[in-house]
Amino acid sequence: MSYDEQNIFAKIIRGELPAEKIYEDQMVLAFMDIMPRSPGHFLVIPKASARNILDIDNENLCAVIKVVKKLAVASKKAMNATGITIQQFSEADGGQEVFHLHFHIIPRYEGKPMDRPGQMVKDMSILSLQANKIKAELGSG
Amino acid sequence: MSYDEQNIFAKIIRGELPAEKIYEDQMVLAFMDIMPRSPGHFLVIPKASARNILDIDNENLCAVIKVVKKLAVASKKAMNATGITIQQFSEADGGQEVFHLHFHIIPRYEGKPMDRPGQMVKDMSILSLQANKIKAELGSG
Repeated sequence: MSYDEQNIFAKIIRGELPAEKIYEDQMVLAFMDIMPRSPGHFLVIPKASARNILDIDNENLCAVIKVVKKLAVASKKAMNATGITIQQFSEADGGQEVFHLHFHIIPRYEGKPMDRPGQMVKDMSILSLQANKIKAELGSG
Repeated sequence: MSYDEQNIFAKIIRGELPAEKIYEDQMVLAFMDIMPRSPGHFLVIPKASARNILDIDNENLCAVIKVVKKLAVASKKAMNATGITIQQFSEADGGQEVFHLHFHIIPRYEGKPMDRPGQMVKDMSILSLQANKIKAELGSG
């Protein structure tokens, strides 16, 4: 399968679309999911053009997973979460909707099931507050 | 949170419990899930004693994710799957049931939702057949 340079995450990487970013380095970007399944839900993606986990090279994959781990720890603490659920979908039948590799990091809370997928957040300022909490935790870590 | 050396995956690593293995190297082990959510569902774990993604070191984490990717590609082909779903749960509230880090790799098929969690496979020989298919694909890859 080929890589579509016009997917929305490619546009976020190029700065053509906005995102509530929480982390960025030369190889990796992380930003809040605008359809969160739980408070604090964010995405970690490589800047390299990979469709999903099936075509990413090992160097970029390791860079991404190290950030996944670092931000999982920071977001659990920042959000006072009691668990973390990570999901990665490859190809439409695997659950993928945007065809640029992304890991979902979903903070979880005691007794609270995840919300159903596909519900757009109503107040974007909430995502900004959550992003700031996670960034503050990263800065103090 | 601490690591319990008596968890069932630690016992599988030490050879004290059986498993339908599909891959093994010095740092990583992969074997079929006995409660599969879709045909071909398997787990990839580090041999190092890590409770979940929150406490694994980067070297072992990279070793694990490289095997996740390699086996995702091989299992998709071997099982004639059309997608792959990956899940990783940390702490009970995140969905974790066995407290040794594991990634679920779940081959997916057009039009088929995942089965509900927690249903034990009735015929273990099916897992053996699936493991052999994936191992054959790895060997030819």
